[in-house]
Amino acid sequence: MKAVILTIGDELLIGQVVNTNATWLGEQLCAAGVDLVRSTALGDDDAAIKDELGRAWSTAELVIVTGGLGPTHDDITRQSVAEYVGVPLDFDEAVFEQVKTRFARRGRSLPESNRTQAMVPRGFEVLANPVGTAPGLWYVTRNGNRTVRLAVLPGVPYEMKYLFEHEVLPRLRGLDGLQVIAHRTLLTVGIGESHLQERIGDLSGILSRELKLAYLPGTSGVRLRMSAYGSIWEDVQKKLDDFETYLRERISRYIFGVNEDTLEGAVGQLLQERGLTIALAESCTGGYVLNRLTNAAGSSAYVLGGVVAYSNDVKINQLGVNPAVLETEGAVSEAVARQMAAGARERMKADIGVSTTGIAGPSGGTPDKPVGLVWVGYADATGDAAFRLQLAEERLLNKELSSTALLNIIRRRLLGLDRET
Amino acid sequence: MKAVILTIGDELLIGQVVNTNATWLGEQLCAAGVDLVRSTALGDDDAAIKDELGRAWSTAELVIVTGGLGPTHDDITRQSVAEYVGVPLDFDEAVFEQVKTRFARRGRSLPESNRTQAMVPRGFEVLANPVGTAPGLWYVTRNGNRTVRLAVLPGVPYEMKYLFEHEVLPRLRGLDGLQVIAHRTLLTVGIGESHLQERIGDLSGILSRELKLAYLPGTSGVRLRMSAYGSIWEDVQKKLDDFETYLRERISRYIFGVNEDTLEGAVGQLLQERGLTIALAESCTGGYVLNRLTNAAGSSAYVLGGVVAYSNDVKINQLGVNPAVLETEGAVSEAVARQMAAGARERMKADIGVSTTGIAGPSGGTPDKPVGLVWVGYADATGDAAFRLQLAEERLLNKELSSTALLNIIRRRLLGLDRET
Repeated sequence: MKAVILTIGDELLIGQVVNTNATWLGEQLCAAGVDLVRSTALGDDDAAIKDELGRAWSTAELVIVTGGLGPTHDDITRQSVAEYVGVPLDFDEAVFEQVKTRFARRGRSLPESNRTQAMVPRGFEVLANPVGTAPGLWYVTRNGNRTVRLAVLPGVPYEMKYLFEHEVLPRLRGLDGLQVIAHRTLLTVGIGESHLQERIGDLSGILSRELKLAYLPGTSGVRLRMSAYGSIWEDVQKKLDDFETYLRERISRYIFGVNEDTLEGAVGQLLQERGLTIALAESCTGGYVLNRLTNAAGSSAYVLGGVVAYSNDVKINQLGVNPAVLETEGAVSEAVARQMAAGARERMKADIGVSTTGIAGPSGGTPDKPVGLVWVGYADATGDAAFRLQLAEERLLNKELSSTALLNIIRRRLLGLDRET
Repeated sequence: MKAVILTIGDELLIGQVVNTNATWLGEQLCAAGVDLVRSTALGDDDAAIKDELGRAWSTAELVIVTGGLGPTHDDITRQSVAEYVGVPLDFDEAVFEQVKTRFARRGRSLPESNRTQAMVPRGFEVLANPVGTAPGLWYVTRNGNRTVRLAVLPGVPYEMKYLFEHEVLPRLRGLDGLQVIAHRTLLTVGIGESHLQERIGDLSGILSRELKLAYLPGTSGVRLRMSAYGSIWEDVQKKLDDFETYLRERISRYIFGVNEDTLEGAVGQLLQERGLTIALAESCTGGYVLNRLTNAAGSSAYVLGGVVAYSNDVKINQLGVNPAVLETEGAVSEAVARQMAAGARERMKADIGVSTTGIAGPSGGTPDKPVGLVWVGYADATGDAAFRLQLAEERLLNKELSSTALLNIIRRRLLGLDRET
């Protein structure tokens, strides 16, 4: 079953509101095995709404329209839909009573403008909305030899969600021809999109119309989204399982999690499982690694604390960095990164100490030490080491990339993996 | 000028990624006076892309396409656009050199698959992308008696934004027929939406079809977006200036900035102007306040550093908190917040020391000290104080709200404002 979503409202086009309704509906349709082919945001514009309804009618078996059902002058969806289908709007006494009751329950009188919310296109089914005033609408018709189903839902997210879950989804269940689609995302770090593709190798014998792979690069690594299609849930899951095994055999060292996992969560879990504690010494990342690690609930079990050492004095006094080394090597150096990591570990009595020191930018670079040069340090009972990174030119991006690189080094050390090649 | 946006990527349809690119572009186009009539998300599907390009061609004078320019097999936008326009893809040596240089600068070799990123549809202008590997594309053509402009941009948000601001917008400026719409947003903190509205008072004599005000509440405060419409840039700016003056007369103490300003940036600027340095002691915020303050370029001039003290040992050893007070009052207490702030100030030799200690959640609360209880401390040469907050039940929200409250306390102290009522 193919679907099209139309989200209606000027606020969506002028960037005032992020279109989370479209995202949420997309996720729900996907989970239900409906194939969403297009999601379009439109203004409160009669001609544009009718034009898109026409296109949807010729593309999809399910059309979901949200927004523009309120009582004010710019809410025109009800009228536009009725005119497109070619039916008049009838005043519905029962709906009006519900709206009145809802207002009365809150001790408020009903404004005259709310009468429009009780107008129903003839032949449409009313979807009762117990969480708001605008009811939804449902309409089933034929276009040639295809059945077209139309759901018209309010734009307020919790009202839309309620009606979709309680009224629309139940009407879809049990329909023939609903394909099962399932997704699973493997999260990688420490390797770029193209190198990942090289290591995975040729997939032309594996990928098909029923098994797809997408590379989704981001600043925390490349996500690999596997999608499987079929008619039976168990078969589709089996395809994903097999494909995941295949991929893990080739790139397991780069995979830190699945779906909604985070790298900081994965590192935290490794620390917790091994009963190890960590202390941090951050310079160029300015507290960002600490912030990421402490986002996980329960992180106080393994994060003892950290020092953000922007000034040299703080590096010396709070971390025990040698002033002579700071003088000769500079703050952004292998030696200082190692001393910071070792100092954090010793002073905070942690099993592991880690550090960052670099030039985040946008200024502060020299020919020898350009913006984006970062040293990250790692210290444990066996000794200390530091790794050189050359990152980007943008400050926030450098904080993001440095923190990800450091978290990945911790992960790899805890797992006993070599440094990535 | 009418515009259409096409955002391309399966991940947008299946609800895996919120389409923030569409929102951001909508806002930018609106600010530039371009009339966005439709924003459509599509999968990585050749036929669908060409179909939508055809519609866009017949609707709009500006077509913006984002996503699907990467090096992997599912990135088909470049190819689909070239085929739609009816031109071949040529290998562009100069673009390839830029991609190679970018890889080389990071000490990485260039995978073969990246060659596709140097393929350029014949007759298209290349928009150099210094912040990523995929360049953008620009093409101007005629459709009947209309000019159609096409921008093809990467889907990675910061790359897309960079190219839109630096390459697309400059090509639009000065074109005829652009209506003037201007927005300005006043950023407030420390006061809720309805109290703000009460203080501003009745605006019915001021607001009109040509002057609007929107309240946009968020976790860092309420943003007030003023919008003015007209035909002449100077007139529209004058309307905004006058309205801003009117609002500032009523709520100036809550306003910390305008448009893209940040609270951490405003605090940083105050510190810099006054030649003051700051040191932080964070417990429940776990480095988040340090991270926010150090996001500002040049923050090393006033942030000396900080200690993230999750464990009591770190509070005692790195900040000089009295173990007996920790024992009797508990870590989440007025006394400990004050000692942490004073300790950070003294140990790091800063003018100002601040602190947070609280129960971020989701667990760890007691009847006396529930989740969401946070003490924030402030110390300077005149002494120290602490303030009690009762925040939410959600961990990340508590980190956000605590850090905002602390930054606002610093701001108000530096400005000599009373504590908010």
